[in-house]
Amino acid sequence: MTPLGASSSHPASNVPLLTERRGGIAILTLNRPAQRNALSEALISALTEAIRDVGSDDAIRAVVIAGSPPAFCAGHDLKEMTAHRSDPDGGRGYYEDLFTRCSAMMSSIVRTPKPFIAAVEGIATAAGCQLVATCDMAIAGADARLATNGIDQGLFCSTPMVALTRNVAPKHAMELLMSGRMIGAEEAARIGLVNRVVSAGEALAAAIALAEVCAAKSQVAVRTGKDAFYRQIGLGLDEAYAVTTKAMACNMMAEDAAEGIGAFIEKRKPVWRDR
Amino acid sequence: MTPLGASSSHPASNVPLLTERRGGIAILTLNRPAQRNALSEALISALTEAIRDVGSDDAIRAVVIAGSPPAFCAGHDLKEMTAHRSDPDGGRGYYEDLFTRCSAMMSSIVRTPKPFIAAVEGIATAAGCQLVATCDMAIAGADARLATNGIDQGLFCSTPMVALTRNVAPKHAMELLMSGRMIGAEEAARIGLVNRVVSAGEALAAAIALAEVCAAKSQVAVRTGKDAFYRQIGLGLDEAYAVTTKAMACNMMAEDAAEGIGAFIEKRKPVWRDR
Amino acid sequence: MTPLGASSSHPASNVPLLTERRGGIAILTLNRPAQRNALSEALISALTEAIRDVGSDDAIRAVVIAGSPPAFCAGHDLKEMTAHRSDPDGGRGYYEDLFTRCSAMMSSIVRTPKPFIAAVEGIATAAGCQLVATCDMAIAGADARLATNGIDQGLFCSTPMVALTRNVAPKHAMELLMSGRMIGAEEAARIGLVNRVVSAGEALAAAIALAEVCAAKSQVAVRTGKDAFYRQIGLGLDEAYAVTTKAMACNMMAEDAAEGIGAFIEKRKPVWRDR
Repeated sequence: MTPLGASSSHPASNVPLLTERRGGIAILTLNRPAQRNALSEALISALTEAIRDVGSDDAIRAVVIAGSPPAFCAGHDLKEMTAHRSDPDGGRGYYEDLFTRCSAMMSSIVRTPKPFIAAVEGIATAAGCQLVATCDMAIAGADARLATNGIDQGLFCSTPMVALTRNVAPKHAMELLMSGRMIGAEEAARIGLVNRVVSAGEALAAAIALAEVCAAKSQVAVRTGKDAFYRQIGLGLDEAYAVTTKAMACNMMAEDAAEGIGAFIEKRKPVWRDR
Repeated sequence: MTPLGASSSHPASNVPLLTERRGGIAILTLNRPAQRNALSEALISALTEAIRDVGSDDAIRAVVIAGSPPAFCAGHDLKEMTAHRSDPDGGRGYYEDLFTRCSAMMSSIVRTPKPFIAAVEGIATAAGCQLVATCDMAIAGADARLATNGIDQGLFCSTPMVALTRNVAPKHAMELLMSGRMIGAEEAARIGLVNRVVSAGEALAAAIALAEVCAAKSQVAVRTGKDAFYRQIGLGLDEAYAVTTKAMACNMMAEDAAEGIGAFIEKRKPVWRDR
Repeated sequence: MTPLGASSSHPASNVPLLTERRGGIAILTLNRPAQRNALSEALISALTEAIRDVGSDDAIRAVVIAGSPPAFCAGHDLKEMTAHRSDPDGGRGYYEDLFTRCSAMMSSIVRTPKPFIAAVEGIATAAGCQLVATCDMAIAGADARLATNGIDQGLFCSTPMVALTRNVAPKHAMELLMSGRMIGAEEAARIGLVNRVVSAGEALAAAIALAEVCAAKSQVAVRTGKDAFYRQIGLGLDEAYAVTTKAMACNMMAEDAAEGIGAFIEKRKPVWRDR
């Protein structure tokens, strides 16, 4: 992963994803502002690669995903998709492949054991809303607007629904999916789609601040925890406790737990070694 | 399904369920007002049949379920049930059959791939509250009151609990089930049991308005979406994405997705053909 | 279970758990105030035993869990745990056993078919927060503060997460787990971690009042209901209805359902026989 300090000040740069590093935090900025950061093939590939990179880079302790203003992400790139209508199979093979790759990219956020935080300003629609729902946490600026509005183009947001229904109550999810209605940041917070709302324009700063909180923790604990979080979430109680009991005992054997608990008992600040 | 314009203005009519059609919307009105629309055998049968009918009628694009004033639905018909205490087996066979048929009716709402919206005025208790929870969406008038209060008759709301716990957080569900406490419309909205609250007496109009929003969408998309919604909801992430990726690619191949996306790109209003 | 009227007025008593009985209600008070009621081995054992006792005592109809002021419970006893670092295996066997026994104690609350209500004043952190999340219902005093803050000691709250994620939306859970942030009673109520907030110092009285509401119900219905609640919660719709249809028909055959429904029809107060 290359630090892109320079390019990050040139949002018109033609790379679809800007990656920047601030201390232990990676900031991934969707960078197709003229297309409201729509998830083109190139952008999905760039995100897939960047997520893999931050996953394997021990120096990265938390990840923020943002959009080049004014939008967060408008979902799939409908023009690019439409062009494949002229494929010999009418596009079917292409679409299956595209949605499979996009779902795999989303799932890789869940599977990478570092906290991912969405910083949402402007619109987050369809697969853009899915990206918000998929991140472990999300902060919205007061002017953010979210929707799963594929229904308005005759294309129900079936894959975004996977992430949406794992975040909000079924009646809220169903209304958003069936009506395509755009909701504001406050309503998104109330139904659990984002953690909280900050002043318009402050979402990135707030997301970075939250990422810094996570980055200051022992990475052994963070890694153990996020991994166990998604492994236990759909299990029955006994299996969930079996998985997490093992995770917790294992975590106890790490140097950082000895240090952290020791520091707590001795009323001093712990020094993490991330092992 | 017969349009019942005439009978719908005679709520005292002795059919237990009134069915009315307004454009693409079916309105099913529980019609036992003197029994607060309790779910007698006859009403369960009529609902089962009406749900099957709206499911197979391509002209119906959304469904509203309401009660003849003043109640939405007071649950099972306890007098009818009590009469079967004198059956040779004390009623056991009858009760098993009754709850099985009622659960099947509720499940048929979930399995019919059209949006069902409850319009709740007055009380919705026990299986009446289950009916609200089971509908895909629900609008409550400000004076609506909901409860799972079978506990007060020594009969825990076990089947209503299935729908309730799939809508609200466990601690809220447990309190409602154990205490039998009646909650108002605002609290129901806050915990996710209804989508929102409107002025008393306005729930039907608001439910119809929401149904009209859904009815104006491509039915291919609506059908695909509701079907996928309930198929994916209990699955692990990979299986959920496998199901919805297929649904989405399939939806893309429908005429309506081509039309809807084309219209979006060309900035015009789409014309759905529902195929 | 011995009534401990006397000892309950001596919170400094050196038994780790006080058990008191008020009518049909058992009050279990974590009693290590100097250690903020941390879950030592002895306390986990005492809780395990007390939960077993209340489960097998037909006179107990509801259970309240509270802490000796000023805290509810600060989680595991870190000093006791740290002492086992010098075990030949570095403590691994001990920790696995400890977390297994603690999880079994928590699960026994879920498996005991009587309502458990947490009365939360002061802090409820880590496994203390898990205890709140595990109880069927919870009332918090306005000054209560809750956190899953093991992350601050390098030990992610993996087992508390099991109970937490079964109560609150994933984004809220993840933030609490990753940041270790302490939340107030109001926020806990808003995200579903407690049922409601009362004035500071009133949580115990409010929890007892709610327990009395539950204790006044037919115990056949309460037992049937809590048992079915947790059996159906992770199942698919058809299986959930199969389980609860059977539970409901069975409940109908109990004397109390005949009495309760009869009383309702005759507009009189039912007299439960709990069978």
